[in-house]
Amino acid sequence: MSKERIYRPKPISGFPEWLPEQRAIELQWIDIIRRSFESFGFCSIETPAVEELNVLTAKGEIEKEIYVMQRLHSENEDNARLGMHYDLTVPFSRYVSQHYGDLVFPFKRYQIQKVWRGERPQVGRYREFYQCDIDVINEDLLPLSYDAEMPRIVYEIFEKLDIKIQFRLNNRKILQGYYEGLGIDDQTSVIRIVDKMDKIGEKGVIDSLQRECGLSGELARQCIAIANIKSSDISFVEQVNTLGVDNDLLRTGLKELSSVLNTLSDLPKSSIIADLSIARGFDYYTGTVYESTLIDYPELGSVCSGGRYENLAGSFIGKNLMGVGISIGLSRVLGKLFADLKLPLGRKCPTDVLIILPDETRIGEANQVAKALRSREINVEVYPSAIKFAKQLRYANRKGIPYVWFLPFAEKQPHEVKNLKTENQYSVDPELWTPQNNT
Amino acid sequence: MSKERIYRPKPISGFPEWLPEQRAIELQWIDIIRRSFESFGFCSIETPAVEELNVLTAKGEIEKEIYVMQRLHSENEDNARLGMHYDLTVPFSRYVSQHYGDLVFPFKRYQIQKVWRGERPQVGRYREFYQCDIDVINEDLLPLSYDAEMPRIVYEIFEKLDIKIQFRLNNRKILQGYYEGLGIDDQTSVIRIVDKMDKIGEKGVIDSLQRECGLSGELARQCIAIANIKSSDISFVEQVNTLGVDNDLLRTGLKELSSVLNTLSDLPKSSIIADLSIARGFDYYTGTVYESTLIDYPELGSVCSGGRYENLAGSFIGKNLMGVGISIGLSRVLGKLFADLKLPLGRKCPTDVLIILPDETRIGEANQVAKALRSREINVEVYPSAIKFAKQLRYANRKGIPYVWFLPFAEKQPHEVKNLKTENQYSVDPELWTPQNNT
Repeated sequence: MSKERIYRPKPISGFPEWLPEQRAIELQWIDIIRRSFESFGFCSIETPAVEELNVLTAKGEIEKEIYVMQRLHSENEDNARLGMHYDLTVPFSRYVSQHYGDLVFPFKRYQIQKVWRGERPQVGRYREFYQCDIDVINEDLLPLSYDAEMPRIVYEIFEKLDIKIQFRLNNRKILQGYYEGLGIDDQTSVIRIVDKMDKIGEKGVIDSLQRECGLSGELARQCIAIANIKSSDISFVEQVNTLGVDNDLLRTGLKELSSVLNTLSDLPKSSIIADLSIARGFDYYTGTVYESTLIDYPELGSVCSGGRYENLAGSFIGKNLMGVGISIGLSRVLGKLFADLKLPLGRKCPTDVLIILPDETRIGEANQVAKALRSREINVEVYPSAIKFAKQLRYANRKGIPYVWFLPFAEKQPHEVKNLKTENQYSVDPELWTPQNNT
Repeated sequence: MSKERIYRPKPISGFPEWLPEQRAIELQWIDIIRRSFESFGFCSIETPAVEELNVLTAKGEIEKEIYVMQRLHSENEDNARLGMHYDLTVPFSRYVSQHYGDLVFPFKRYQIQKVWRGERPQVGRYREFYQCDIDVINEDLLPLSYDAEMPRIVYEIFEKLDIKIQFRLNNRKILQGYYEGLGIDDQTSVIRIVDKMDKIGEKGVIDSLQRECGLSGELARQCIAIANIKSSDISFVEQVNTLGVDNDLLRTGLKELSSVLNTLSDLPKSSIIADLSIARGFDYYTGTVYESTLIDYPELGSVCSGGRYENLAGSFIGKNLMGVGISIGLSRVLGKLFADLKLPLGRKCPTDVLIILPDETRIGEANQVAKALRSREINVEVYPSAIKFAKQLRYANRKGIPYVWFLPFAEKQPHEVKNLKTENQYSVDPELWTPQNNT
């Protein structure tokens, strides 16, 4: 092989890629997530990797992070501008409006796909990553019990994954109503600034509110008073009432958030709390909003977030559609747990038993045994050549294959199986044997 | 809602998108394919959507079809050129060389991912589509039994899908050796031209061979003589021998192809045939090559193809790596069957039973029943609001949910379930009931 051709490939920054034993875990998680979504009646959909750019940019804000996709040698007329989706909510909204007549509402879908964001890569931030989303969309009215269903499903998933999660819930109407009640016109700007409390601190927020929104120091302090309210039951309502602001939208928000918390009261108290500092950056949320923390990995930030939105889908076709959804940032959680070596790795291959090939002429016989075992959901490899047994066994050991199978060494002799862990070897019937622990 | 905002989204040409009842079938197929791959010991991997452009273009040929991905507002220094993968073989080869030290060989992997090609859209051609690939890679030596394993696995998959498939096998060494034996230097060009027989006919091929390769008419006719040889057993060897060309490489190819056909002799005769016209366009194949036809959809062309290659992975790191693989063009098959209405559609949602909500105050009770049922793998929805029973039932009917559940209408009364198909209604215990046909 000529030297010039040799080029050692490097990882592409921000595009994670797992080894087989890591991918086995990712696949196991995806299966658990999918099964949980389906157990609540969500159907699967997939949307293309790309959307028309005007669909992706309809809500502004995120524009600079979008990747576009175009032909390497594109001719001019081919320059239809396609952008790769940066989340699954916007493509889902487009899907609902495009297929409106073919869907049954309330429409509950899940979507487990990769998304792409052109962010500067940094620890724990990817440019390509899996998101696992559920959303419900309905026309005209969407019952609040769906707002409670979202964190319930994700809570159950993390319970199955044996990871402790805490959800923080708020309702945008509380914030908007409260600021409206304070006499502030541009509530959206205030919400955005108060949302930065974690990053710039209380003093930073007060300064920004005065400088950017022209509020008095007193008013700025009132603005952040609400963001300090937290409770694991509905006592947040009383705490808001002591702030002395009266407003219709605020009252509606308090009622909605109380209702959601009540519906979730069967979950452990520490797993669902009301936290009135939560706003979510995206403009499109209009009611309930969710963030979450993994108790053992708070530094990861919110790995499951979402909320209720209006007109996101409807804006495409002039229908009054509203939805609520939540998204699990699968790759971010997995990447962190892999990096911290907190997860036992999966198997290097799914093979349960390796059939040792004693002689090239017996491959047909080996294939027949393999077929019989596979018909009982056992994963089988036939070693592809009749090299020394020790070498074939070494392959099984290196791949972590738990059993090896020996064809009869002479006529009227039995098949035998060896458990490579216990080193037990015993006679077996190809039509009956199953591994003791098929995992 | 203002008129200006209304924008009815259209499908993006070449990017298929399925309705939930179609996606249910796609998911079912992917599950079958995945289970079959795993039952032969292949592990799952995924590679990023993008590769560095020099990785994708290392083998030339396909360059014009590549999509590149770049940031919408890319600064200059960010112009690392990333191309989206157009198949899964090249990314897999890069994966093997990059992670060489972490893998156990022979390395068997499967990969089910979307690929992108910037082709002009036409019926049955997509710009984004699923491919389902298996490959085995090893260093220095790769037993021929793997060449037989590839079509065997795919044959079993299509058997499970109840679709009749015929594989056509050849070996590049036969073609190269034969042309070498005829005294032709540029065998690759001849192979490429003869490969166009389907499209330009025998006369077209003879003309091209004379015009482009400068062959005599007699030699050109000898070139295509081999492409007319087909057999469902190893009698192709005799047919080649009658052509009177003697060459070492040719003999090796005939031996290899015979061995592969013999290993597959337990499959129905009509499903595996030797067809010496098969060459495969891609340069990188060096031995066995596969194409296939769906018996009931010959117009689809080859939906499962592949072959044996050398140095595709090794070229990155200077190792002598060789592989053999096959790829199922899942989206093309599904798209055709959907278009021809040849597939019964799947369910609109996975829900097995809908719990009717008689009163908003009973949502906690309904959730408890749902939880009990879900713990037994039953998919359950609780209707989200206490509207009229008739409307709740209508939702179940429209979504094709087979059962509805009635909570006790008074204390000490039983739970009841109604089968919406048979209209039978009967008392049930939430801790015991399971649907009769949970599909």
